[in-house]
Amino acid sequence: MSHSLPNKPLFITLEGGEGAGKSTAMRYLQQQLTRAGIDVLTTREPGGTVIAEQIRQILLQKQDEPLTIATELLLVFAARSQHIAEVIRPALARGQWVLCDRFTDATFAYQGGGRGVPLSIIATLEQLVQQDLQPDYTLLLDAPPSLGMKRIQRRAALDRIEAEQLAFFERVRQAYLLRAKQAPERFVVINSAKPLSEVKRQLAALVTQLSEKYL
Amino acid sequence: MSHSLPNKPLFITLEGGEGAGKSTAMRYLQQQLTRAGIDVLTTREPGGTVIAEQIRQILLQKQDEPLTIATELLLVFAARSQHIAEVIRPALARGQWVLCDRFTDATFAYQGGGRGVPLSIIATLEQLVQQDLQPDYTLLLDAPPSLGMKRIQRRAALDRIEAEQLAFFERVRQAYLLRAKQAPERFVVINSAKPLSEVKRQLAALVTQLSEKYL
Repeated sequence: MSHSLPNKPLFITLEGGEGAGKSTAMRYLQQQLTRAGIDVLTTREPGGTVIAEQIRQILLQKQDEPLTIATELLLVFAARSQHIAEVIRPALARGQWVLCDRFTDATFAYQGGGRGVPLSIIATLEQLVQQDLQPDYTLLLDAPPSLGMKRIQRRAALDRIEAEQLAFFERVRQAYLLRAKQAPERFVVINSAKPLSEVKRQLAALVTQLSEKYL
Repeated sequence: MSHSLPNKPLFITLEGGEGAGKSTAMRYLQQQLTRAGIDVLTTREPGGTVIAEQIRQILLQKQDEPLTIATELLLVFAARSQHIAEVIRPALARGQWVLCDRFTDATFAYQGGGRGVPLSIIATLEQLVQQDLQPDYTLLLDAPPSLGMKRIQRRAALDRIEAEQLAFFERVRQAYLLRAKQAPERFVVINSAKPLSEVKRQLAALVTQLSEKYL
Protein backbone atom coordinates (compact mmCIF):
# COMPACT_ATOMS: atom_id res chain seq x y z
CA MET A 1 0.00 0.00 0.00
CA SER A 2 0.87 3.60 -0.47
CA HIS A 3 2.42 6.79 0.45
CA SER A 4 0.25 8.50 3.08
CA LEU A 5 1.59 9.47 6.47
CA PRO A 6 0.14 8.24 9.77
CA ASN A 7 -2.47 10.62 11.22
CA LYS A 8 -3.23 12.06 7.84
CA PRO A 9 -6.96 11.68 7.17
CA LEU A 10 -7.53 9.46 4.14
CA PHE A 11 -9.56 10.22 1.03
CA ILE A 12 -11.01 6.89 -0.09
CA THR A 13 -13.15 6.42 -3.19
CA LEU A 14 -15.39 3.51 -4.06
CA GLU A 15 -15.86 2.64 -7.71
CA GLY A 16 -17.64 0.03 -9.78
CA GLY A 17 -20.15 -0.50 -12.58
CA GLU A 18 -23.93 -0.70 -12.23
CA GLY A 19 -25.06 -3.45 -9.87
CA ALA A 20 -21.53 -4.09 -8.58
CA GLY A 21 -22.82 -3.73 -5.03
CA LYS A 22 -21.55 -0.23 -4.31
CA SER A 23 -24.43 0.85 -2.06
CA THR A 24 -24.08 -2.17 0.20
CA ALA A 25 -20.31 -1.78 0.28
CA MET A 26 -20.60 1.94 1.13
CA ARG A 27 -22.84 1.23 4.14
CA TYR A 28 -20.63 -1.62 5.31
CA LEU A 29 -17.40 0.37 4.94
CA GLN A 30 -18.85 3.33 6.81
CA GLN A 31 -19.91 1.00 9.63
CA GLN A 32 -16.51 -0.71 9.82
CA LEU A 33 -14.58 2.56 9.73
CA THR A 34 -16.77 4.03 12.47
CA ARG A 35 -16.29 0.89 14.59
CA ALA A 36 -12.55 1.28 14.18
CA GLY A 37 -12.91 4.72 15.79
CA ILE A 38 -12.46 6.68 12.59
CA ASP A 39 -14.40 9.92 12.06
CA VAL A 40 -15.53 9.40 8.49
CA LEU A 41 -17.65 11.53 6.19
CA THR A 42 -19.47 9.64 3.45
CA THR A 43 -20.55 11.39 0.27
CA ARG A 44 -21.31 10.62 -3.35
CA GLU A 45 -20.76 11.86 -6.89
CA PRO A 46 -22.25 13.48 -8.76
CA GLY A 47 -23.76 15.48 -5.91
CA GLY A 48 -22.91 16.33 -2.33
CA THR A 49 -23.68 20.08 -2.35
CA VAL A 50 -26.76 22.11 -3.26
CA ILE A 51 -25.34 23.15 -6.62
CA ALA A 52 -23.82 19.72 -7.32
CA GLU A 53 -27.21 18.10 -6.65
CA GLN A 54 -28.86 20.56 -9.07
CA ILE A 55 -26.30 19.45 -11.66
CA ARG A 56 -26.91 15.79 -10.77
CA GLN A 57 -30.60 16.29 -11.56
CA ILE A 58 -29.73 17.57 -15.03
CA LEU A 59 -27.44 14.57 -15.58
CA LEU A 60 -29.92 11.91 -14.49
CA GLN A 61 -33.29 13.27 -15.62
CA LYS A 62 -34.85 11.65 -18.64
CA GLN A 63 -36.01 14.22 -21.17
CA ASP A 64 -36.56 14.92 -24.84
CA GLU A 65 -33.37 16.93 -25.27
CA PRO A 66 -30.40 14.57 -25.47
CA LEU A 67 -27.30 15.57 -23.51
CA THR A 68 -24.25 15.88 -25.74
CA ILE A 69 -21.22 13.87 -24.71
CA ALA A 70 -19.36 17.13 -24.02
CA THR A 71 -22.19 18.45 -21.82
CA GLU A 72 -22.25 15.27 -19.76
CA LEU A 73 -18.48 15.45 -19.25
CA LEU A 74 -18.50 19.15 -18.33
CA LEU A 75 -21.42 18.80 -15.91
CA VAL A 76 -19.71 15.91 -14.12
CA PHE A 77 -16.59 18.00 -13.55
CA ALA A 78 -18.62 21.10 -12.62
CA ALA A 79 -20.40 19.12 -9.88
CA ARG A 80 -17.04 17.69 -8.80
CA SER A 81 -15.49 21.12 -8.44
CA GLN A 82 -18.26 22.18 -6.03
CA HIS A 83 -18.02 18.89 -4.16
CA ILE A 84 -14.28 19.27 -3.67
CA ALA A 85 -14.49 22.92 -2.57
CA GLU A 86 -17.49 22.55 -0.26
CA VAL A 87 -17.23 19.01 1.11
CA ILE A 88 -14.06 17.02 0.47
CA ARG A 89 -11.32 19.57 1.17
CA PRO A 90 -13.03 21.04 4.27
CA ALA A 91 -13.54 17.55 5.76
CA LEU A 92 -9.92 16.51 5.19
CA ALA A 93 -8.79 19.86 6.62
CA ARG A 94 -10.84 19.14 9.80
CA GLY A 95 -9.12 15.74 10.09
CA GLN A 96 -12.09 13.65 8.93
CA TRP A 97 -11.62 10.74 6.58
CA VAL A 98 -13.69 10.98 3.42
CA LEU A 99 -15.39 7.98 1.82
CA CYS A 100 -16.75 8.96 -1.58
CA ASP A 101 -19.12 6.96 -3.79
CA ARG A 102 -17.51 7.52 -7.23
CA PHE A 103 -14.94 10.11 -8.28
CA THR A 104 -12.76 10.88 -11.31
CA ASP A 105 -11.98 7.22 -12.07
CA ALA A 106 -15.69 6.95 -12.87
CA THR A 107 -15.30 9.73 -15.44
CA PHE A 108 -12.38 7.93 -17.07
CA ALA A 109 -14.51 4.75 -17.07
CA TYR A 110 -17.94 6.12 -18.14
CA GLN A 111 -17.12 9.14 -20.30
CA GLY A 112 -13.71 7.88 -21.45
CA GLY A 113 -14.20 4.12 -21.82
CA GLY A 114 -17.97 4.21 -22.23
CA ARG A 115 -18.48 7.24 -24.48
CA GLY A 116 -15.08 7.53 -26.13
CA VAL A 117 -14.04 10.97 -24.82
CA PRO A 118 -10.25 11.27 -25.33
CA LEU A 119 -8.51 10.51 -22.03
CA SER A 120 -6.25 13.56 -22.49
CA ILE A 121 -9.30 15.86 -22.28
CA ILE A 122 -10.44 14.14 -19.07
CA ALA A 123 -6.93 14.52 -17.67
CA THR A 124 -6.98 18.28 -18.47
CA LEU A 125 -10.28 18.70 -16.64
CA GLU A 126 -9.02 16.57 -13.73
CA GLN A 127 -6.08 18.94 -13.38
CA LEU A 128 -8.31 22.05 -13.63
CA VAL A 129 -10.71 20.81 -10.97
CA GLN A 130 -8.57 18.76 -8.56
CA GLN A 131 -5.12 20.37 -8.74
CA ASP A 132 -3.17 18.38 -6.11
CA LEU A 133 -6.13 16.38 -4.76
CA GLN A 134 -6.09 12.63 -5.46
CA PRO A 135 -7.73 9.73 -3.60
CA ASP A 136 -5.35 7.89 -1.25
CA TYR A 137 -7.14 4.61 -1.93
CA THR A 138 -9.69 3.54 -4.49
CA LEU A 139 -11.71 0.37 -3.96
CA LEU A 140 -12.93 -1.03 -7.24
CA LEU A 141 -15.81 -3.50 -7.06
CA ASP A 142 -15.38 -5.53 -10.19
CA ALA A 143 -17.89 -7.95 -11.70
CA PRO A 144 -18.95 -8.94 -15.23
CA PRO A 145 -21.56 -6.43 -16.52
CA SER A 146 -23.99 -9.26 -17.30
CA LEU A 147 -24.15 -10.02 -13.57
CA GLY A 148 -24.49 -6.33 -12.62
CA MET A 149 -27.31 -5.82 -15.11
CA LYS A 150 -29.16 -8.81 -13.72
CA ARG A 151 -28.95 -7.24 -10.26
CA ILE A 152 -30.20 -3.76 -11.26
CA GLN A 153 -33.06 -5.08 -13.37
CA ARG A 154 -34.70 -6.09 -10.12
CA ARG A 155 -35.06 -2.39 -9.31
CA ALA A 156 -38.23 -0.50 -10.20
CA ALA A 157 -37.06 1.90 -12.91
CA LEU A 158 -33.75 2.40 -14.64
CA ASP A 159 -32.41 5.95 -14.93
CA ARG A 160 -30.88 7.29 -18.13
CA ILE A 161 -27.40 5.98 -17.41
CA GLU A 162 -28.59 2.54 -16.27
CA ALA A 163 -30.58 2.12 -19.45
CA GLU A 164 -27.41 1.96 -21.54
CA GLN A 165 -26.50 -1.24 -23.27
CA LEU A 166 -24.31 -4.06 -22.07
CA ALA A 167 -21.46 -3.29 -24.51
CA PHE A 168 -21.20 0.15 -22.94
CA PHE A 169 -20.80 -1.39 -19.49
CA GLU A 170 -18.16 -3.79 -20.79
CA ARG A 171 -16.13 -0.79 -22.01
CA VAL A 172 -16.66 0.89 -18.63
CA ARG A 173 -15.38 -2.22 -16.85
CA GLN A 174 -12.29 -2.48 -19.03
CA ALA A 175 -11.50 1.22 -18.51
CA TYR A 176 -11.78 0.77 -14.73
CA LEU A 177 -9.46 -2.26 -14.82
CA LEU A 178 -6.95 -0.30 -16.91
CA ARG A 179 -6.97 2.54 -14.36
CA ALA A 180 -6.36 -0.02 -11.59
CA LYS A 181 -3.46 -1.53 -13.50
CA GLN A 182 -1.92 1.91 -14.06
CA ALA A 183 -2.08 2.89 -10.36
CA PRO A 184 -1.67 -0.37 -8.36
CA GLU A 185 -0.44 1.55 -5.27
CA ARG A 186 -3.80 3.33 -5.08
CA PHE A 187 -6.30 0.68 -6.23
CA VAL A 188 -7.72 -2.30 -4.36
CA VAL A 189 -9.72 -4.47 -6.76
CA ILE A 190 -12.42 -6.59 -5.14
CA ASN A 191 -14.17 -9.35 -7.07
CA SER A 192 -17.79 -8.50 -6.38
CA ALA A 193 -19.11 -11.48 -8.33
CA LYS A 194 -18.30 -13.46 -5.16
CA PRO A 195 -20.89 -13.87 -2.41
CA LEU A 196 -21.60 -10.77 -0.32
CA SER A 197 -20.12 -12.44 2.79
CA GLU A 198 -16.78 -12.78 1.01
CA VAL A 199 -16.84 -9.17 -0.27
CA LYS A 200 -17.58 -7.98 3.28
CA ARG A 201 -14.72 -10.09 4.67
CA GLN A 202 -12.32 -8.37 2.28
CA LEU A 203 -13.66 -4.89 3.10
CA ALA A 204 -13.35 -5.57 6.84
CA ALA A 205 -9.77 -6.80 6.41
CA LEU A 206 -8.94 -3.66 4.46
CA VAL A 207 -10.38 -1.39 7.16
CA THR A 208 -8.30 -3.23 9.78
CA GLN A 209 -5.19 -2.77 7.68
CA LEU A 210 -5.84 0.95 7.10
CA SER A 211 -6.68 1.69 10.71
CA GLU A 212 -3.53 -0.10 11.90
CA LYS A 213 -1.44 1.86 9.45
CA TYR A 214 -2.98 5.34 9.71
CA LEU A 215 -4.42 5.76 13.21
CA MET B 1 -14.68 41.39 -44.51
CA SER B 2 -14.24 37.69 -44.47
CA HIS B 3 -14.28 34.35 -45.98
CA SER B 4 -17.89 33.16 -46.18
CA LEU B 5 -19.48 32.22 -49.46
CA PRO B 6 -22.61 33.86 -50.88
CA ASN B 7 -25.80 31.99 -49.95
CA LYS B 8 -24.18 30.47 -46.91
CA PRO B 9 -26.24 31.39 -43.83
CA LEU B 10 -24.17 33.49 -41.44
CA PHE B 11 -23.53 32.86 -37.76
CA ILE B 12 -23.26 36.31 -36.15
CA THR B 13 -22.51 36.92 -32.49
CA LEU B 14 -23.02 40.09 -30.49
CA GLU B 15 -20.65 40.78 -27.62
CA GLY B 16 -20.06 43.49 -25.06
CA GLY B 17 -19.77 44.24 -21.36
CA GLU B 18 -22.61 45.04 -18.97
CA GLY B 19 -24.62 48.07 -20.01
CA ALA B 20 -23.00 48.24 -23.46
CA GLY B 21 -26.44 48.28 -25.06
CA LYS B 22 -26.57 44.68 -26.26
CA SER B 23 -30.32 44.19 -25.75
CA THR B 24 -31.22 47.25 -27.80
CA ALA B 25 -28.70 46.29 -30.47
CA MET B 26 -30.06 42.72 -30.64
CA ARG B 27 -33.61 43.95 -31.25
CA TYR B 28 -32.47 46.50 -33.81
CA LEU B 29 -30.27 44.01 -35.68
CA GLN B 30 -33.04 41.43 -35.79
CA GLN B 31 -35.39 44.05 -37.20
CA GLN B 32 -32.91 45.23 -39.83
CA LEU B 33 -31.99 41.70 -40.92
CA THR B 34 -35.65 40.76 -41.23
CA ARG B 35 -36.33 43.91 -43.27
CA ALA B 36 -33.50 42.92 -45.58
CA GLY B 37 -35.39 39.69 -46.25
CA ILE B 38 -33.12 37.48 -44.17
CA ASP B 39 -34.59 34.56 -42.22
CA VAL B 40 -32.78 35.04 -38.91
CA LEU B 41 -32.98 33.13 -35.67
CA THR B 42 -32.04 35.11 -32.56
CA THR B 43 -30.83 33.35 -29.43
CA ARG B 44 -28.69 34.01 -26.38
CA GLU B 45 -26.02 32.49 -24.19
CA PRO B 46 -25.99 30.99 -21.68
CA GLY B 47 -29.36 29.42 -22.50
CA GLY B 48 -31.40 28.70 -25.61
CA THR B 49 -32.49 25.12 -24.83
CA VAL B 50 -34.32 23.52 -21.89
CA ILE B 51 -31.11 22.08 -20.44
CA ALA B 52 -29.05 25.18 -21.22
CA GLU B 53 -31.64 27.33 -19.43
CA GLN B 54 -31.47 25.01 -16.39
CA ILE B 55 -27.71 25.55 -16.43
CA ARG B 56 -28.20 29.31 -16.85
CA GLN B 57 -30.29 29.33 -13.67
CA ILE B 58 -27.46 27.72 -11.74
CA LEU B 59 -25.02 30.29 -13.12
CA LEU B 60 -27.12 33.36 -12.34
CA GLN B 61 -28.88 32.46 -9.09
CA LYS B 62 -27.60 34.12 -5.94
CA GLN B 63 -27.04 31.59 -3.18
CA ASP B 64 -24.95 30.75 -0.16
CA GLU B 65 -22.73 28.25 -1.94
CA PRO B 66 -20.15 30.12 -4.01
CA LEU B 67 -19.52 28.80 -7.53
CA THR B 68 -15.88 27.89 -8.05
CA ILE B 69 -14.18 29.49 -11.03
CA ALA B 70 -13.87 26.03 -12.61
CA THR B 71 -17.59 25.29 -12.12
CA GLU B 72 -18.59 28.56 -13.74
CA LEU B 73 -16.34 27.85 -16.72
CA LEU B 74 -17.56 24.25 -17.14
CA LEU B 75 -21.24 25.20 -16.84
CA VAL B 76 -20.86 27.90 -19.48
CA PHE B 77 -19.40 25.40 -21.94
CA ALA B 78 -21.94 22.70 -21.00
CA ALA B 79 -24.79 25.09 -21.83
CA ARG B 80 -22.99 26.08 -25.03
CA SER B 81 -22.68 22.46 -26.16
CA GLN B 82 -26.46 21.99 -25.88
CA HIS B 83 -27.10 25.32 -27.57
CA ILE B 84 -24.89 24.39 -30.53
CA ALA B 85 -26.36 20.89 -30.93
CA GLU B 86 -30.02 21.85 -30.51
CA VAL B 87 -30.26 25.38 -31.87
CA ILE B 88 -27.30 26.83 -33.76
CA ARG B 89 -26.26 23.93 -36.02
CA PRO B 90 -29.84 22.93 -36.92
CA ALA B 91 -30.72 26.54 -37.85
CA LEU B 92 -27.63 26.97 -40.05
CA ALA B 93 -28.37 23.57 -41.64
CA ARG B 94 -31.88 24.79 -42.49
CA GLY B 95 -30.39 27.89 -44.12
CA GLN B 96 -31.34 30.34 -41.36
CA TRP B 97 -28.92 33.01 -40.23
CA VAL B 98 -28.19 32.89 -36.50
CA LEU B 99 -27.80 36.02 -34.38
CA CYS B 100 -26.52 35.05 -30.94
CA ASP B 101 -26.33 37.25 -27.85
CA ARG B 102 -22.89 36.24 -26.49
CA PHE B 103 -20.73 33.25 -27.39
CA THR B 104 -17.21 31.97 -26.70
CA ASP B 105 -15.58 35.41 -26.93
CA ALA B 106 -17.59 36.20 -23.79
CA THR B 107 -15.92 33.24 -22.05
CA PHE B 108 -12.47 34.47 -23.06
CA ALA B 109 -13.48 37.92 -21.76
CA TYR B 110 -15.33 37.04 -18.52
CA GLN B 111 -13.70 33.80 -17.35
CA GLY B 112 -10.33 34.45 -19.00
CA GLY B 113 -9.83 38.21 -18.64
CA GLY B 114 -12.19 38.69 -15.71
CA ARG B 115 -11.43 35.65 -13.55
CA GLY B 116 -7.95 34.72 -14.74
CA VAL B 117 -8.67 31.25 -16.17
CA PRO B 118 -5.72 30.34 -18.44
CA LEU B 119 -6.70 31.03 -22.05
CA SER B 120 -5.26 27.64 -23.10
CA ILE B 121 -7.89 25.85 -20.99
CA ILE B 122 -10.67 27.93 -22.58
CA ALA B 123 -9.24 27.09 -26.02
CA THR B 124 -9.28 23.35 -25.16
CA LEU B 125 -12.94 23.55 -24.12
CA GLU B 126 -13.77 25.64 -27.20
CA GLN B 127 -12.33 22.87 -29.38
CA LEU B 128 -14.18 20.14 -27.43
CA VAL B 129 -17.53 21.88 -27.72
CA GLN B 130 -17.41 23.71 -31.07
CA GLN B 131 -15.12 21.60 -33.24
CA ASP B 132 -15.29 23.40 -36.61
CA LEU B 133 -18.01 25.92 -35.64
CA GLN B 134 -16.93 29.57 -35.41
CA PRO B 135 -18.94 32.79 -35.78
CA ASP B 136 -18.63 34.37 -39.23
CA TYR B 137 -18.93 37.84 -37.72
CA THR B 138 -18.74 39.14 -34.17
CA LEU B 139 -20.04 42.60 -33.34
CA LEU B 140 -18.40 43.98 -30.23
CA LEU B 141 -20.16 46.87 -28.52
CA ASP B 142 -17.35 48.62 -26.72
CA ALA B 143 -17.68 51.29 -24.04
CA PRO B 144 -15.80 52.22 -20.87
CA PRO B 145 -17.08 50.07 -17.95
CA SER B 146 -17.81 53.18 -15.87
CA LEU B 147 -20.42 54.18 -18.46
CA GLY B 148 -21.88 50.65 -18.65
CA MET B 149 -22.17 50.43 -14.87
CA LYS B 150 -23.99 53.75 -14.74
CA ARG B 151 -26.50 52.37 -17.26
CA ILE B 152 -27.20 49.09 -15.47
CA GLN B 153 -27.50 50.73 -12.04
CA ARG B 154 -30.76 52.18 -13.28
CA ARG B 155 -32.14 48.62 -13.38
CA ALA B 156 -34.04 47.18 -10.40
CA ALA B 157 -31.66 44.48 -9.15
CA LEU B 158 -28.21 43.37 -10.19
CA ASP B 159 -27.63 39.63 -10.69
CA ARG B 160 -24.51 37.88 -9.39
CA ILE B 161 -22.40 38.67 -12.44
CA GLU B 162 -23.51 42.31 -12.64
CA ALA B 163 -22.63 42.85 -9.01
CA GLU B 164 -18.91 42.39 -9.74
CA GLN B 165 -16.60 45.33 -9.35
CA LEU B 166 -15.48 47.85 -11.92
CA ALA B 167 -11.91 46.49 -12.13
CA PHE B 168 -13.34 43.14 -13.20
CA PHE B 169 -15.23 44.82 -16.04
CA GLU B 170 -12.14 46.70 -17.10
CA ARG B 171 -10.32 43.34 -17.49
CA VAL B 172 -13.31 41.98 -19.41
CA ARG B 173 -13.20 44.96 -21.77
CA GLN B 174 -9.47 44.60 -22.40
CA ALA B 175 -9.85 40.86 -23.09
CA TYR B 176 -12.62 41.58 -25.60
CA LEU B 177 -10.49 44.20 -27.35
CA LEU B 178 -7.57 41.76 -27.51
CA ARG B 179 -9.80 39.13 -29.12
CA ALA B 180 -10.92 41.72 -31.68
CA LYS B 181 -7.33 42.64 -32.45
CA GLN B 182 -6.38 38.96 -32.91
CA ALA B 183 -9.23 38.26 -35.36
CA PRO B 184 -9.85 41.51 -37.27
CA GLU B 185 -11.44 39.64 -40.23
CA ARG B 186 -14.18 38.41 -37.89
CA PHE B 187 -14.73 41.35 -35.51
CA VAL B 188 -16.58 44.60 -36.03
CA VAL B 189 -15.98 46.90 -33.05
CA ILE B 190 -18.66 49.52 -32.45
CA ASN B 191 -18.13 52.39 -30.04
CA SER B 192 -21.26 52.14 -27.94
CA ALA B 193 -20.38 55.16 -25.82
CA LYS B 194 -21.73 57.17 -28.76
CA PRO B 195 -25.42 58.15 -28.95
CA LEU B 196 -27.82 55.33 -29.73
CA SER B 197 -28.73 56.93 -33.10
CA GLU B 198 -25.10 56.65 -34.20
CA VAL B 199 -24.80 53.02 -33.00
CA LYS B 200 -27.97 52.17 -34.92
CA ARG B 201 -26.64 53.90 -38.04
CA GLN B 202 -23.53 51.68 -37.92
CA LEU B 203 -25.58 48.52 -37.35
CA ALA B 204 -27.87 49.37 -40.26
CA ALA B 205 -24.89 49.99 -42.54
CA LEU B 206 -23.43 46.65 -41.54
CA VAL B 207 -26.67 44.80 -42.30
CA THR B 208 -26.78 46.45 -45.74
CA GLN B 209 -23.19 45.39 -46.40
CA LEU B 210 -23.82 41.79 -45.27
CA SER B 211 -27.04 41.42 -47.20
CA GLU B 212 -25.40 42.76 -50.37
CA LYS B 213 -22.53 40.36 -49.96
CA TYR B 214 -24.31 37.18 -48.85
CA LEU B 215 -27.82 37.22 -50.28
